[in-house]
Amino acid sequence: MANGFLQITDNNDRNWYTALFSRALEIRHSFEAGRKFHPSLEGVMLINLFFEPSTRTRVSFESAEKFLGATVLNVNLQDSSTAKGETEEDTLKCVAGYMPDMMVIRHKREGFPRMAQDVTGIPVINAGDGKACHPTQALLDVFTLWERFGDLEGRKILFLGNLSHSRVVNSTSRLASLFGMQCHYCSPPGWQKQDAPQGSIVETPDNLGDYDVIYALRIQFERGAGDEFSKEEYQQRYRLDEKRVATMADHGVIMHPAPMNRGVEITDGAADGEKSIIFHQMENGLFARMALLEKLWMGGGSC
Amino acid sequence: MANGFLQITDNNDRNWYTALFSRALEIRHSFEAGRKFHPSLEGVMLINLFFEPSTRTRVSFESAEKFLGATVLNVNLQDSSTAKGETEEDTLKCVAGYMPDMMVIRHKREGFPRMAQDVTGIPVINAGDGKACHPTQALLDVFTLWERFGDLEGRKILFLGNLSHSRVVNSTSRLASLFGMQCHYCSPPGWQKQDAPQGSIVETPDNLGDYDVIYALRIQFERGAGDEFSKEEYQQRYRLDEKRVATMADHGVIMHPAPMNRGVEITDGAADGEKSIIFHQMENGLFARMALLEKLWMGGGSC
Amino acid sequence: MANGFLQITDNNDRNWYTALFSRALEIRHSFEAGRKFHPSLEGVMLINLFFEPSTRTRVSFESAEKFLGATVLNVNLQDSSTAKGETEEDTLKCVAGYMPDMMVIRHKREGFPRMAQDVTGIPVINAGDGKACHPTQALLDVFTLWERFGDLEGRKILFLGNLSHSRVVNSTSRLASLFGMQCHYCSPPGWQKQDAPQGSIVETPDNLGDYDVIYALRIQFERGAGDEFSKEEYQQRYRLDEKRVATMADHGVIMHPAPMNRGVEITDGAADGEKSIIFHQMENGLFARMALLEKLWMGGGSC
Repeated sequence: MANGFLQITDNNDRNWYTALFSRALEIRHSFEAGRKFHPSLEGVMLINLFFEPSTRTRVSFESAEKFLGATVLNVNLQDSSTAKGETEEDTLKCVAGYMPDMMVIRHKREGFPRMAQDVTGIPVINAGDGKACHPTQALLDVFTLWERFGDLEGRKILFLGNLSHSRVVNSTSRLASLFGMQCHYCSPPGWQKQDAPQGSIVETPDNLGDYDVIYALRIQFERGAGDEFSKEEYQQRYRLDEKRVATMADHGVIMHPAPMNRGVEITDGAADGEKSIIFHQMENGLFARMALLEKLWMGGGSC
Repeated sequence: MANGFLQITDNNDRNWYTALFSRALEIRHSFEAGRKFHPSLEGVMLINLFFEPSTRTRVSFESAEKFLGATVLNVNLQDSSTAKGETEEDTLKCVAGYMPDMMVIRHKREGFPRMAQDVTGIPVINAGDGKACHPTQALLDVFTLWERFGDLEGRKILFLGNLSHSRVVNSTSRLASLFGMQCHYCSPPGWQKQDAPQGSIVETPDNLGDYDVIYALRIQFERGAGDEFSKEEYQQRYRLDEKRVATMADHGVIMHPAPMNRGVEITDGAADGEKSIIFHQMENGLFARMALLEKLWMGGGSC
Repeated sequence: MANGFLQITDNNDRNWYTALFSRALEIRHSFEAGRKFHPSLEGVMLINLFFEPSTRTRVSFESAEKFLGATVLNVNLQDSSTAKGETEEDTLKCVAGYMPDMMVIRHKREGFPRMAQDVTGIPVINAGDGKACHPTQALLDVFTLWERFGDLEGRKILFLGNLSHSRVVNSTSRLASLFGMQCHYCSPPGWQKQDAPQGSIVETPDNLGDYDVIYALRIQFERGAGDEFSKEEYQQRYRLDEKRVATMADHGVIMHPAPMNRGVEITDGAADGEKSIIFHQMENGLFARMALLEKLWMGGGSC
């Protein structure tokens, strides 16, 4: 029976994650060998319950679930389809009445997935809540680094871009820290990570020789994100381009959570160059989610 | 082979329903014992064909179908996706060309599901047509009462709220009557059930000691439903609240088809109190639909 | 392993298609005998990737895939769900990261499906790209004719209606020609097929005795298609009506890709009369797609 809930803040057991990463790597290797289906969730009913649209995350989960042999229901409750006047608790009880064994939930409000688990008694995987948390993104990111570097103790990662509203940065930096990584942050003045520890702020991305990982974030100027400075200014001072990549250490790698805004926060040369592991990272989303679903269902403890 | 069609008006055989309820109860017990999958529809292709959006009903059917091992296609033909100029018959023949063994159909016009069965020759389950009929809601409601009370002969049910446009009231009262229940109706003046038999109208819900069941209906003031009186007036005179619940018989129960508009037609105390079987009723939707799908497919006669 | 790609222009091997048609007919017969599931794609993950909405084509594919036992993901990337700033190549790599074995792709731009196969290395079936190509429509059309007439050498087909923007006409005429059919075209002045060979243009559809097949196309006046003449004028001069049907040869048949705009390009008498094989043609969509999916997966060569 599943009994876990993916709140990375709750789980400080590095071994739990390492076991998950080992399994994710095993699954990756089996895919590379042409074996994709691992029916450990046969006879398990899963609901992907999305309160905000996210085709990519939903399909990544659905793919993982189906490769594991699960039976899947997709339930989108956006805007008008949540009944007027109905409480969130009642909506959740209604969904629980479809009798899923687990639920994957995305909601714009922080804490919703945990509340959903409390109300329904059904194990919930957090597929992103508000600006706080995106645990499976953290899993796939740190899995990718673990696969690359092995021991992560003391490794340095620099998050670059719009850090103030990023659930990716919040989640991934937390898990990276658990593995002993040193997290640094570089952003324009108005986009700093609010709770960045003293000494972790980096002024410019012009000297990247110290870092094992440069993690570029998506910038969306069309959302009015850059009122204080122009797109051109951002590109000149912060974009990860060939000149900045040239300052990286030989063994340094580049990551990005996708979708990339090419030309804005990252150039083609950086995204497609030999230091980029962005597409490998992207593929690891499936393998990390498969390992997580399997581990939770098998009862490998709460995470 | 399936040969049934769910028009409750067509079927006056109490035994047919009792057999269905027995099976639904069996299925409920198996779920409670941890066994959910009952693959009696393996190798059966089902289409859920929805001409008006209804996430809840659709997912309830889809869940039932998948627990029975069926292969499922969801087809939403709303608004723009029905081709301009194409006749309904041609649209149905197009869907029939996907070669389903059964179809679950929801449409805003009364009689559409039956017409669809006639045109295609494929067994159709009516998932709600117009204001006339919502047969599977009736099934789950009366199943819930049968589970609770056993013999329903002479039991009294009071429908409370907006009764004039309710397919729930139409369907459930009809099936309840077949089981010998006495149906009573209480609503504000403008919201009476049009075809309520003489003597079945109740003025106020202030003395509920006579009823075995109080069935509260959803009120939507935002749809301009209450032009003749205010929300406050409704709450004062008709809402099922603790004071009114206190007048109920000891063995009386409270039902509601959901989603509840808490505070409007029902208070928290009534909805969550010990007389409420609303969440049990909600869960029975899955079990009643599973039993129905199985029975129709197994050829248990027309209903 | 699958290695095909459905560009009819690439494949001039009549035998390849004949083998496919034979298999489609076998499948049709098995359906008629009550056996629908042919699990030759069990353990295969398929993604239906639609960049423009097309419920009919998508469900036809999904039905075919599920009758073959495949595991299916539907991914709709329309409008807002394609990320701003992301390149098409990156979007495709993201989808490829869900690790499908094959993809069925519809896109409004010609050549997109082939590009998608090149970028991802995953076999792609073209479910319609731009105004250029709709290969599976061609398959089901020519399959239907092959089933009807056997040898198609020298048979005459007349395409009638709005031919200038029709991917159906482009695709079906090409495949019909490969089988030795003579294609003729009849349309109002502004709607001619641009690349129609000399001598293939027919002025009026008033004498149809020479043709084995009359293929009527959908007309949409609401899209401003008929600026140059009125709906009434079209109906009088080009609509396939009983009078024109009466001029057809005894063995002649009527086809239409659906959805029909009854009364506009075709009358009820023509659509439902004894010469019409429109509904048979419609059903063949499923069988042709099943045969194609199976053949591509089994490695029956590129098409």
